[in-house]
Amino acid sequence: MTYCVGLLLKEGIVLLSDTRTNAGLDNISTYRKMFFFEDPGERVIGILTAGSLSVTQTTLARLRELCDDPNADETTSILKAPTMLKVADMVGSMLSRVRADVTDKTQMGQWASATMIVAGQRKGGEMRMFLIYPEGNYIEATPDTPFLQIGEHKYGKPILDRVVTTETSLKDAQKAVLLSMDSTLRSNLSVGMPLDLAVIKRDQCRVAERRRIEAGDESFRAMSEAWSNALRDGFSQIEL
Amino acid sequence: MTYCVGLLLKEGIVLLSDTRTNAGLDNISTYRKMFFFEDPGERVIGILTAGSLSVTQTTLARLRELCDDPNADETTSILKAPTMLKVADMVGSMLSRVRADVTDKTQMGQWASATMIVAGQRKGGEMRMFLIYPEGNYIEATPDTPFLQIGEHKYGKPILDRVVTTETSLKDAQKAVLLSMDSTLRSNLSVGMPLDLAVIKRDQCRVAERRRIEAGDESFRAMSEAWSNALRDGFSQIEL
Repeated sequence: MTYCVGLLLKEGIVLLSDTRTNAGLDNISTYRKMFFFEDPGERVIGILTAGSLSVTQTTLARLRELCDDPNADETTSILKAPTMLKVADMVGSMLSRVRADVTDKTQMGQWASATMIVAGQRKGGEMRMFLIYPEGNYIEATPDTPFLQIGEHKYGKPILDRVVTTETSLKDAQKAVLLSMDSTLRSNLSVGMPLDLAVIKRDQCRVAERRRIEAGDESFRAMSEAWSNALRDGFSQIEL
Repeated sequence: MTYCVGLLLKEGIVLLSDTRTNAGLDNISTYRKMFFFEDPGERVIGILTAGSLSVTQTTLARLRELCDDPNADETTSILKAPTMLKVADMVGSMLSRVRADVTDKTQMGQWASATMIVAGQRKGGEMRMFLIYPEGNYIEATPDTPFLQIGEHKYGKPILDRVVTTETSLKDAQKAVLLSMDSTLRSNLSVGMPLDLAVIKRDQCRVAERRRIEAGDESFRAMSEAWSNALRDGFSQIEL
Protein backbone atom coordinates (compact mmCIF):
# COMPACT_ATOMS: atom_id res chain seq x y z
CA MET A 1 0.00 0.00 0.00
CA THR A 2 0.89 3.60 0.35
CA TYR A 3 0.22 6.66 2.42
CA CYS A 4 0.19 10.10 0.80
CA VAL A 5 -1.24 13.30 2.22
CA GLY A 6 -1.63 16.82 0.90
CA LEU A 7 -2.51 20.01 2.80
CA LEU A 8 -3.94 23.10 1.12
CA LEU A 9 -3.37 26.05 3.44
CA LYS A 10 -3.55 29.82 3.26
CA GLU A 11 0.25 29.98 3.15
CA GLY A 12 0.73 27.20 0.62
CA ILE A 13 0.71 23.48 -0.07
CA VAL A 14 2.49 20.69 1.84
CA LEU A 15 2.83 17.22 0.29
CA LEU A 16 4.15 14.03 1.86
CA SER A 17 4.40 10.49 0.50
CA ASP A 18 6.00 7.21 1.50
CA THR A 19 7.84 5.04 -1.05
CA ARG A 20 6.93 1.45 -0.25
CA THR A 21 5.53 -0.67 -3.05
CA ASN A 22 4.69 -4.30 -2.75
CA ALA A 23 3.52 -7.08 -5.01
CA GLY A 24 2.55 -9.48 -2.29
CA LEU A 25 4.18 -9.30 1.11
CA ASP A 26 7.46 -10.84 -0.04
CA ASN A 27 8.18 -8.53 -2.94
CA ILE A 28 8.80 -5.08 -1.51
CA SER A 29 10.45 -2.21 -3.37
CA THR A 30 11.03 1.50 -3.09
CA TYR A 31 9.37 3.73 -5.66
CA ARG A 32 8.87 7.46 -5.65
CA LYS A 33 5.19 8.41 -5.40
CA MET A 34 5.62 12.19 -5.60
CA PHE A 35 6.09 13.90 -8.96
CA PHE A 36 6.32 17.49 -10.12
CA PHE A 37 5.49 19.20 -13.38
CA GLU A 38 7.05 22.61 -13.09
CA ASP A 39 7.62 25.76 -15.08
CA PRO A 40 9.19 27.70 -12.19
CA GLY A 41 7.49 31.01 -11.50
CA GLU A 42 4.78 30.22 -14.04
CA ARG A 43 3.26 26.96 -12.88
CA VAL A 44 3.80 24.11 -10.45
CA ILE A 45 1.83 20.86 -10.28
CA GLY A 46 2.54 18.15 -7.71
CA ILE A 47 1.08 14.67 -8.14
CA LEU A 48 0.98 11.98 -5.42
CA THR A 49 0.06 8.43 -6.37
CA ALA A 50 -1.40 5.34 -4.69
CA GLY A 51 -2.49 1.99 -6.09
CA SER A 52 -1.34 -0.26 -8.91
CA LEU A 53 2.21 0.74 -9.84
CA SER A 54 1.75 -0.14 -13.51
CA VAL A 55 -1.26 2.20 -13.65
CA THR A 56 0.38 5.10 -11.82
CA GLN A 57 3.71 4.86 -13.68
CA THR A 58 2.05 4.64 -17.09
CA THR A 59 -0.29 7.54 -16.29
CA LEU A 60 2.63 9.72 -15.20
CA ALA A 61 4.78 8.68 -18.16
CA ARG A 62 2.04 9.55 -20.65
CA LEU A 63 1.34 12.89 -18.98
CA ARG A 64 5.07 13.63 -19.14
CA GLU A 65 5.31 12.59 -22.79
CA LEU A 66 2.44 14.92 -23.67
CA CYS A 67 4.18 17.81 -21.87
CA ASP A 68 7.44 17.11 -23.75
CA ASP A 69 5.75 16.88 -27.15
CA PRO A 70 6.83 19.90 -29.27
CA ASN A 71 3.26 20.14 -30.56
CA ALA A 72 1.80 20.19 -27.04
CA ASP A 73 -1.04 22.63 -26.54
CA GLU A 74 -3.42 23.57 -23.76
CA THR A 75 -5.67 20.59 -24.51
CA THR A 76 -2.88 17.99 -24.24
CA SER A 77 -0.21 19.28 -21.81
CA ILE A 78 -0.94 19.82 -18.14
CA LEU A 79 1.84 22.43 -18.22
CA LYS A 80 -0.25 24.47 -20.67
CA ALA A 81 -3.77 23.81 -19.40
CA PRO A 82 -5.58 27.08 -18.65
CA THR A 83 -6.64 26.22 -15.08
CA MET A 84 -5.89 23.76 -12.25
CA LEU A 85 -9.43 22.42 -12.68
CA LYS A 86 -8.56 21.56 -16.26
CA VAL A 87 -5.35 19.90 -15.02
CA ALA A 88 -7.44 17.73 -12.67
CA ASP A 89 -9.67 16.81 -15.62
CA MET A 90 -6.71 15.85 -17.77
CA VAL A 91 -5.05 13.76 -15.06
CA GLY A 92 -8.39 12.09 -14.29
CA SER A 93 -9.03 11.25 -17.95
CA MET A 94 -5.54 9.84 -18.37
CA LEU A 95 -5.79 7.80 -15.17
CA SER A 96 -9.11 6.30 -16.18
CA ARG A 97 -7.87 5.49 -19.73
CA VAL A 98 -4.68 3.83 -18.45
CA ARG A 99 -6.67 1.91 -15.89
CA ALA A 100 -8.97 0.59 -18.62
CA ASP A 101 -5.93 -0.35 -20.77
CA VAL A 102 -4.19 -2.19 -17.95
CA THR A 103 -7.36 -3.99 -16.89
CA ASP A 104 -7.93 -5.01 -20.48
CA LYS A 105 -4.37 -6.36 -20.83
CA THR A 106 -4.24 -8.24 -17.57
CA GLN A 107 -7.73 -9.75 -17.86
CA MET A 108 -7.73 -10.00 -14.10
CA GLY A 109 -11.53 -9.99 -13.87
CA GLN A 110 -11.01 -7.15 -11.47
CA TRP A 111 -10.22 -3.53 -12.33
CA ALA A 112 -6.69 -2.31 -11.80
CA SER A 113 -6.97 0.72 -9.57
CA ALA A 114 -5.14 3.85 -8.51
CA THR A 115 -5.87 7.22 -6.93
CA MET A 116 -3.93 10.47 -7.10
CA ILE A 117 -3.66 13.81 -5.36
CA VAL A 118 -3.07 16.70 -7.77
CA ALA A 119 -2.09 20.04 -6.23
CA GLY A 120 -0.65 23.25 -7.57
CA GLN A 121 -1.02 26.75 -8.94
CA ARG A 122 -0.48 28.58 -12.18
CA LYS A 123 0.52 32.23 -12.25
CA GLY A 124 -2.53 34.42 -11.74
CA GLY A 125 -4.67 31.46 -10.67
CA GLU A 126 -5.69 29.99 -7.33
CA MET A 127 -3.80 27.26 -5.45
CA ARG A 128 -5.97 24.17 -5.68
CA MET A 129 -5.75 20.53 -4.64
CA PHE A 130 -7.77 17.55 -5.91
CA LEU A 131 -8.15 13.88 -5.08
CA ILE A 132 -8.58 11.98 -8.35
CA TYR A 133 -10.56 8.72 -8.16
CA PRO A 134 -9.74 5.68 -10.33
CA GLU A 135 -12.71 6.49 -12.61
CA GLY A 136 -11.32 9.96 -13.29
CA ASN A 137 -13.78 11.97 -11.21
CA TYR A 138 -12.45 14.03 -8.32
CA ILE A 139 -13.08 15.99 -5.15
CA GLU A 140 -11.35 19.20 -4.10
CA ALA A 141 -9.85 20.36 -0.80
CA THR A 142 -11.62 23.37 0.73
CA PRO A 143 -11.07 25.59 3.76
CA ASP A 144 -13.44 23.28 5.70
CA THR A 145 -11.42 20.20 4.81
CA PRO A 146 -7.94 21.39 3.95
CA PHE A 147 -6.33 17.95 3.68
CA LEU A 148 -6.65 15.04 1.27
CA GLN A 149 -5.24 11.56 1.82
CA ILE A 150 -4.79 8.48 -0.39
CA GLY A 151 -3.77 4.91 0.46
CA GLU A 152 -3.67 3.83 4.11
CA HIS A 153 -5.30 7.01 5.36
CA LYS A 154 -7.03 5.96 8.57
CA TYR A 155 -4.14 5.61 11.03
CA GLY A 156 -2.92 9.12 10.32
CA LYS A 157 -6.27 10.88 10.16
CA PRO A 158 -6.89 11.52 13.90
CA ILE A 159 -3.86 13.80 14.26
CA LEU A 160 -4.83 15.77 11.13
CA ASP A 161 -8.44 16.07 12.33
CA ARG A 162 -7.17 17.60 15.57
CA VAL A 163 -4.45 20.00 14.53
CA VAL A 164 -4.82 21.06 10.88
CA THR A 165 -6.88 24.03 9.76
CA THR A 166 -6.53 26.24 6.73
CA GLU A 167 -4.69 28.76 8.97
CA THR A 168 -1.98 26.26 10.00
CA SER A 169 1.51 27.57 9.25
CA LEU A 170 3.69 25.76 6.71
CA LYS A 171 6.05 24.77 9.51
CA ASP A 172 3.30 23.27 11.67
CA ALA A 173 1.82 21.66 8.58
CA GLN A 174 5.07 19.82 7.92
CA LYS A 175 5.11 18.61 11.51
CA ALA A 176 1.48 17.49 11.23
CA VAL A 177 1.95 15.45 8.04
CA LEU A 178 5.17 13.89 9.38
CA LEU A 179 3.44 12.86 12.65
CA SER A 180 0.47 11.58 10.65
CA MET A 181 2.93 9.49 8.61
CA ASP A 182 4.74 8.38 11.76
CA SER A 183 1.50 6.93 13.19
CA THR A 184 0.88 5.13 9.90
CA LEU A 185 4.42 3.74 9.67
CA ARG A 186 4.14 2.34 13.19
CA SER A 187 0.80 0.66 12.64
CA ASN A 188 1.04 -0.58 9.06
CA LEU A 189 3.93 -2.50 7.51
CA SER A 190 2.80 -1.77 3.96
CA VAL A 191 3.81 1.88 4.36
CA GLY A 192 7.57 2.49 4.59
CA MET A 193 10.53 4.86 4.55
CA PRO A 194 12.08 6.79 2.89
CA LEU A 195 9.62 9.68 2.68
CA ASP A 196 9.29 12.54 0.22
CA LEU A 197 8.27 15.93 1.62
CA ALA A 198 7.61 19.05 -0.44
CA VAL A 199 6.39 22.58 0.20
CA ILE A 200 4.91 25.00 -2.33
CA LYS A 201 4.44 28.58 -1.14
CA ARG A 202 1.43 30.61 -2.23
CA ASP A 203 1.93 32.55 -5.47
CA GLN A 204 5.54 31.39 -5.97
CA CYS A 205 4.47 28.81 -8.57
CA ARG A 206 7.53 26.69 -7.85
CA VAL A 207 8.59 23.98 -5.39
CA ALA A 208 9.99 25.93 -2.43
CA GLU A 209 11.39 22.97 -0.49
CA ARG A 210 11.85 19.35 -1.34
CA ARG A 211 13.37 16.80 0.95
CA ARG A 212 13.88 13.05 0.99
CA ILE A 213 13.80 11.66 4.51
CA GLU A 214 15.80 8.44 4.68
CA ALA A 215 15.19 5.61 7.14
CA GLY A 216 18.03 6.72 9.41
CA ASP A 217 17.11 10.43 9.33
CA GLU A 218 18.10 11.82 12.72
CA SER A 219 15.64 14.71 12.88
CA PHE A 220 12.69 12.53 11.89
CA ARG A 221 13.69 9.93 14.46
CA ALA A 222 13.98 12.63 17.15
CA MET A 223 10.59 14.08 16.21
CA SER A 224 9.00 10.65 16.27
CA GLU A 225 10.48 9.93 19.69
CA ALA A 226 9.43 13.32 21.07
CA TRP A 227 5.91 12.64 19.84
CA SER A 228 5.85 9.20 21.47
CA ASN A 229 7.01 10.75 24.73
CA ALA A 230 4.44 13.54 24.48
CA LEU A 231 1.69 10.98 23.90
CA ARG A 232 2.83 8.82 26.81
CA ASP A 233 3.14 11.83 29.13
CA GLY A 234 -0.26 13.10 28.06
CA PHE A 235 -1.70 9.62 28.56
CA SER A 236 -0.29 9.25 32.06
CA GLN A 237 -1.57 12.66 33.13
CA ILE A 238 -5.15 12.05 32.08
CA GLU A 239 -7.62 11.17 34.82
CA LEU A 240 -10.00 8.33 34.10
CA MET B 1 -19.80 0.14 10.98
CA THR B 2 -18.56 -0.51 14.46
CA TYR B 3 -15.52 -0.27 16.63
CA CYS B 4 -14.89 -2.86 19.35
CA VAL B 5 -11.66 -3.54 21.17
CA GLY B 6 -10.59 -6.08 23.77
CA LEU B 7 -7.44 -6.13 25.92
CA LEU B 8 -6.07 -9.29 27.51
CA LEU B 9 -3.76 -8.22 30.35
CA LYS B 10 -2.05 -9.84 33.30
CA GLU B 11 -4.60 -8.24 35.62
CA GLY B 12 -7.66 -9.03 33.55
CA ILE B 13 -9.73 -8.24 30.48
CA VAL B 14 -11.07 -4.86 29.32
CA LEU B 15 -13.75 -4.68 26.64
CA LEU B 16 -15.17 -1.62 24.87
CA SER B 17 -17.74 -1.31 22.10
CA ASP B 18 -19.70 1.43 20.41
CA THR B 19 -23.41 1.01 19.61
CA ARG B 20 -23.96 2.54 16.19
CA THR B 21 -25.61 0.44 13.54
CA ASN B 22 -26.50 1.64 10.11
CA ALA B 23 -28.31 0.30 7.08
CA GLY B 24 -27.17 2.95 4.65
CA LEU B 25 -26.17 6.36 5.90
CA ASP B 26 -29.74 7.51 6.52
CA ASN B 27 -30.90 4.64 8.70
CA ILE B 28 -28.93 4.82 11.91
CA SER B 29 -29.82 3.01 15.12
CA THR B 30 -28.37 2.13 18.50
CA TYR B 31 -27.76 -1.54 19.24
CA ARG B 32 -25.72 -3.13 22.00
CA LYS B 33 -22.66 -4.96 20.63
CA MET B 34 -21.37 -6.33 23.93
CA PHE B 35 -22.88 -9.47 25.44
CA PHE B 36 -22.10 -11.62 28.47
CA PHE B 37 -22.68 -15.26 29.23
CA GLU B 38 -22.01 -15.56 32.92
CA ASP B 39 -22.15 -18.08 35.74
CA PRO B 40 -20.63 -15.74 38.33
CA GLY B 41 -17.59 -17.16 40.06
CA GLU B 42 -17.60 -20.17 37.74
CA ARG B 43 -17.37 -18.74 34.25
CA VAL B 44 -17.60 -15.47 32.36
CA ILE B 45 -17.65 -15.04 28.59
CA GLY B 46 -17.83 -11.63 26.90
CA ILE B 47 -18.68 -11.36 23.20
CA LEU B 48 -18.23 -8.22 21.07
CA THR B 49 -19.78 -8.10 17.62
CA ALA B 50 -19.20 -6.27 14.33
CA GLY B 51 -20.80 -6.68 10.92
CA SER B 52 -24.25 -7.61 9.65
CA LEU B 53 -26.74 -7.11 12.48
CA SER B 54 -28.96 -9.96 11.34
CA VAL B 55 -25.96 -12.30 11.48
CA THR B 56 -24.70 -11.15 14.89
CA GLN B 57 -28.14 -11.04 16.54
CA THR B 58 -29.12 -14.47 15.26
CA THR B 59 -25.76 -15.96 16.29
CA LEU B 60 -26.10 -14.56 19.81
CA ALA B 61 -29.76 -15.59 20.07
CA ARG B 62 -28.97 -19.17 19.09
CA LEU B 63 -26.02 -19.38 21.47
CA ARG B 64 -28.29 -18.08 24.25
CA GLU B 65 -31.04 -20.54 23.37
CA LEU B 66 -28.58 -23.42 23.57
CA CYS B 67 -27.40 -22.24 27.00
CA ASP B 68 -31.01 -22.03 28.24
CA ASP B 69 -31.97 -25.47 26.94
CA PRO B 70 -32.57 -27.78 29.91
CA ASN B 71 -30.81 -30.55 27.98
CA ALA B 72 -27.75 -28.37 27.35
CA ASP B 73 -24.44 -30.18 27.69
CA GLU B 74 -20.79 -29.36 27.18
CA THR B 75 -21.05 -29.90 23.42
CA THR B 76 -23.95 -27.46 22.95
CA SER B 77 -23.74 -24.73 25.64
CA ILE B 78 -20.85 -22.30 25.82
CA LEU B 79 -21.58 -22.03 29.55
CA LYS B 80 -20.70 -25.73 29.90
CA ALA B 81 -17.88 -26.05 27.35
CA PRO B 82 -14.75 -27.50 28.99
CA THR B 83 -12.33 -24.77 27.81
CA MET B 84 -12.29 -21.23 26.38
CA LEU B 85 -10.77 -22.72 23.22
CA LYS B 86 -13.85 -24.90 22.88
CA VAL B 87 -16.03 -21.82 23.45
CA ALA B 88 -14.22 -20.08 20.56
CA ASP B 89 -14.86 -23.14 18.40
CA MET B 90 -18.54 -23.17 19.24
CA VAL B 91 -19.02 -19.44 18.63
CA GLY B 92 -17.07 -19.74 15.36
CA SER B 93 -19.15 -22.68 14.16
CA MET B 94 -22.40 -20.93 15.02
CA LEU B 95 -21.27 -17.69 13.35
CA SER B 96 -20.30 -19.47 10.16
CA ARG B 97 -23.58 -21.47 10.08
CA VAL B 98 -25.73 -18.37 10.63
CA ARG B 99 -23.76 -16.50 8.03
CA ALA B 100 -24.42 -19.28 5.51
CA ASP B 101 -28.14 -19.29 6.41
CA VAL B 102 -28.51 -15.54 6.06
CA THR B 103 -26.55 -15.47 2.80
CA ASP B 104 -28.73 -18.27 1.48
CA LYS B 105 -31.94 -16.43 2.43
CA THR B 106 -30.97 -13.03 1.11
CA GLN B 107 -29.48 -14.29 -2.15
CA MET B 108 -27.40 -11.14 -2.22
CA GLY B 109 -24.70 -12.72 -4.38
CA GLN B 110 -22.35 -11.58 -1.67
CA TRP B 111 -21.75 -13.24 1.68
CA ALA B 112 -23.27 -11.64 4.76
CA SER B 113 -20.41 -11.08 7.13
CA ALA B 114 -19.59 -10.53 10.78
CA THR B 115 -16.66 -10.84 13.17
CA MET B 116 -16.59 -11.27 16.93
CA ILE B 117 -14.26 -10.97 19.88
CA VAL B 118 -14.75 -13.71 22.47
CA ALA B 119 -13.02 -13.26 25.82
CA GLY B 120 -13.30 -14.87 29.20
CA GLN B 121 -12.28 -17.41 31.75
CA ARG B 122 -13.71 -20.48 33.43
CA LYS B 123 -12.81 -21.42 36.98
CA GLY B 124 -9.46 -23.20 37.00
CA GLY B 125 -8.73 -22.24 33.40
CA GLU B 126 -6.74 -19.45 31.76
CA MET B 127 -8.13 -16.07 30.72
CA ARG B 128 -8.21 -16.10 26.91
CA MET B 129 -9.39 -13.82 24.14
CA PHE B 130 -10.12 -14.69 20.49
CA LEU B 131 -11.04 -12.82 17.33
CA ILE B 132 -13.53 -14.97 15.40
CA TYR B 133 -13.57 -14.52 11.62
CA PRO B 134 -16.75 -14.80 9.54
CA GLU B 135 -15.71 -18.28 8.38
CA GLY B 136 -15.48 -19.47 11.99
CA ASN B 137 -11.69 -19.68 12.27
CA TYR B 138 -9.97 -17.47 14.83
CA ILE B 139 -6.81 -15.93 16.18
CA GLU B 140 -5.91 -15.46 19.84
CA ALA B 141 -4.46 -12.52 21.78
CA THR B 142 -1.02 -13.20 23.25
CA PRO B 143 1.41 -11.30 25.52
CA ASP B 144 3.09 -9.96 22.34
CA THR B 145 -0.19 -8.64 20.97
CA PRO B 146 -2.50 -8.19 23.93
CA PHE B 147 -5.29 -6.40 22.05
CA LEU B 148 -7.80 -7.42 19.40
CA GLN B 149 -10.00 -5.05 17.40
CA ILE B 150 -12.99 -5.51 15.08
CA GLY B 151 -14.78 -3.04 12.81
CA GLU B 152 -13.20 0.36 12.15
CA HIS B 153 -9.93 -0.53 13.84
CA LYS B 154 -7.37 1.66 12.11
CA TYR B 155 -8.04 5.10 13.61
CA GLY B 156 -7.68 3.78 17.14
CA LYS B 157 -4.71 1.48 16.60
CA PRO B 158 -1.82 3.98 16.92
CA ILE B 159 -2.62 4.81 20.56
CA LEU B 160 -2.90 1.11 21.46
CA ASP B 161 0.35 0.34 19.64
CA ARG B 162 2.08 2.97 21.75
CA VAL B 163 0.73 2.49 25.26
CA VAL B 164 -0.66 -1.02 25.75
CA THR B 165 1.40 -3.97 26.91
CA THR B 166 0.38 -7.08 28.80
CA GLU B 167 1.60 -5.35 32.00
CA THR B 168 -0.75 -2.35 31.60
CA SER B 169 -2.96 -1.85 34.66
CA LEU B 170 -6.73 -2.25 34.33
CA LYS B 171 -7.12 1.48 35.02
CA ASP B 172 -4.68 2.52 32.29
CA ALA B 173 -6.22 -0.08 30.00
CA GLN B 174 -9.63 1.55 30.37
CA LYS B 175 -8.08 4.93 29.54
CA ALA B 176 -6.32 3.44 26.53
CA VAL B 177 -9.43 1.85 25.00
CA LEU B 178 -11.51 4.97 25.66
CA LEU B 179 -8.91 7.19 23.96
CA SER B 180 -8.66 4.71 21.11
CA MET B 181 -12.44 4.93 20.77
CA ASP B 182 -12.32 8.73 21.04
CA SER B 183 -9.97 8.94 18.04
CA THR B 184 -12.29 6.64 16.09
CA LEU B 185 -15.44 8.60 17.00
CA ARG B 186 -13.81 11.83 15.86
CA SER B 187 -12.66 10.47 12.53
CA ASN B 188 -15.48 8.13 11.52
CA LEU B 189 -19.19 8.92 11.58
CA SER B 190 -20.19 5.27 11.36
CA VAL B 191 -18.97 4.71 14.92
CA GLY B 192 -21.09 6.38 17.61
CA MET B 193 -22.01 6.85 21.25
CA PRO B 194 -23.18 5.50 23.65
CA LEU B 195 -20.34 3.13 24.55
CA ASP B 196 -20.28 -0.06 26.60
CA LEU B 197 -17.23 -0.64 28.80
CA ALA B 198 -16.59 -3.76 30.87
CA VAL B 199 -13.80 -5.10 33.06
CA ILE B 200 -13.19 -8.72 34.06
CA LYS B 201 -10.55 -9.29 36.75
CA ARG B 202 -8.24 -12.30 36.61
CA ASP B 203 -9.61 -15.41 38.33
CA GLN B 204 -12.85 -13.72 39.46
CA CYS B 205 -14.84 -15.37 36.64
CA ARG B 206 -17.44 -12.60 36.73
CA VAL B 207 -17.92 -9.13 35.24
CA ALA B 208 -16.26 -6.81 37.75
CA GLU B 209 -17.38 -3.51 36.25
CA ARG B 210 -19.83 -2.65 33.55
CA ARG B 211 -20.66 0.84 32.45
CA ARG B 212 -22.66 2.48 29.69
CA ILE B 213 -21.17 5.80 28.66
CA GLU B 214 -23.88 8.04 27.22
CA ALA B 215 -23.32 10.80 24.66
CA GLY B 216 -23.38 13.51 27.32
CA ASP B 217 -21.13 11.67 29.80
CA GLU B 218 -19.19 14.34 31.65
CA SER B 219 -16.13 12.27 32.58
CA PHE B 220 -15.72 10.93 29.04
CA ARG B 221 -16.05 14.44 27.64
CA ALA B 222 -13.46 15.73 30.11
CA MET B 223 -11.07 12.90 29.26
CA SER B 224 -11.52 13.48 25.56
CA GLU B 225 -10.83 17.19 25.99
CA ALA B 226 -7.79 16.57 28.20
CA TRP B 227 -6.45 14.22 25.54
CA SER B 228 -7.02 16.78 22.78
CA ASN B 229 -5.18 19.37 24.86
CA ALA B 230 -2.34 16.98 25.61
CA LEU B 231 -2.00 16.21 21.90
CA ARG B 232 -2.04 19.89 20.95
CA ASP B 233 0.47 20.79 23.66
CA GLY B 234 2.70 17.90 22.66
CA PHE B 235 2.38 18.94 19.03
CA SER B 236 3.30 22.55 19.68
CA GLN B 237 6.35 21.60 21.75
CA ILE B 238 7.86 19.36 19.11
CA GLU B 239 10.72 20.78 17.07
CA LEU B 240 10.60 20.16 13.34
